[in-house]
Amino acid sequence: MKEELIQFLSGFPELSVEEVNVIAENIPVVSHPKGTVLLEEGQVPNECYFVLKGLIREYRMLDGEEKTVEFYTETNGAISSSDYVNQTASNGYLMCMEDSLLICGNPRVDAVNYKNFPVLKAITSKMLETDLNETKEKFSKFITSSPKDRYLNLLKTRPDLLNRVPLHQIASYLGMTAESLSRIRKRVLFEE
Amino acid sequence: MKEELIQFLSGFPELSVEEVNVIAENIPVVSHPKGTVLLEEGQVPNECYFVLKGLIREYRMLDGEEKTVEFYTETNGAISSSDYVNQTASNGYLMCMEDSLLICGNPRVDAVNYKNFPVLKAITSKMLETDLNETKEKFSKFITSSPKDRYLNLLKTRPDLLNRVPLHQIASYLGMTAESLSRIRKRVLFEE
Repeated sequence: MKEELIQFLSGFPELSVEEVNVIAENIPVVSHPKGTVLLEEGQVPNECYFVLKGLIREYRMLDGEEKTVEFYTETNGAISSSDYVNQTASNGYLMCMEDSLLICGNPRVDAVNYKNFPVLKAITSKMLETDLNETKEKFSKFITSSPKDRYLNLLKTRPDLLNRVPLHQIASYLGMTAESLSRIRKRVLFEE
Repeated sequence: MKEELIQFLSGFPELSVEEVNVIAENIPVVSHPKGTVLLEEGQVPNECYFVLKGLIREYRMLDGEEKTVEFYTETNGAISSSDYVNQTASNGYLMCMEDSLLICGNPRVDAVNYKNFPVLKAITSKMLETDLNETKEKFSKFITSSPKDRYLNLLKTRPDLLNRVPLHQIASYLGMTAESLSRIRKRVLFEE
């Protein structure tokens, strides 16, 4: 299970091979089978996650309907929230949509690791900044795009999702009904 | 001009009164009159900003139309982007909608300040995390909300905006036409 973690950590030029190996031994990695619910509405999260492999869906229950707000995969692995940071009750759910391998953080373990490996703090900070800027850019694109453009953008930026999750969840993630997405997909195919 | 900066820095319990005064002397604050364009599409941003007072609108030009993607004010002051971090050309514009007082950062000044005042790095990192979590929460709300709920949410979370910017910019920020917003506002008034 540590293989993926070592590979992930090796991607940071700030870390030497020795550091990667020592840090990898100190970071908890967990594996969860498809279908595992990591967090439920109303629970106070005591862990945060980073997806090394697999797919986690974040969704909310609104008027009895599941509304998907994010899919976390190997390309956007950091799952945290103000509920974790502020220790408040979650508005939504986190569910493994595939067998998943996750870095599993908690404030106690993080504090020890940051103390022993200060370089980790710098790396986390850089990742936070990247995540913030990507989230802002995605949000801006979402606000300014038509439903069709949102779908085309997803095809371009995260084509793997189409094969990994059901279409009705994609539709919800794009802020439209399954019927609208189906119409758009037919139109796009016809235009090609 | 440093009064607002001192007040802002005093809000961080990590900083002593002496530190606040020394840091305030080393952080550049600029004032720009209403109408100033801080950044244009295609420019590579060499500064990042934090709003101490005033209002900055971020917008994009799409098919000859201005699409507002964010209003930065005293409550969500941090303006940065991947274009600033990665030194790439901006997709959009930043414009002062009011006379504005801004902390003005650049990589050179930031590096010196972080070196001289390491506590600043910790504060910035915490602000980044808060900003990321708030942006994610706002994005999730946007995806899962109807246009009417988006308007009601704005009334609840940022009621000042309604008095500070034209309605057609609010409409665009909420991902709807000015006509739709006008209809929704009438309906909400009627329901009250």
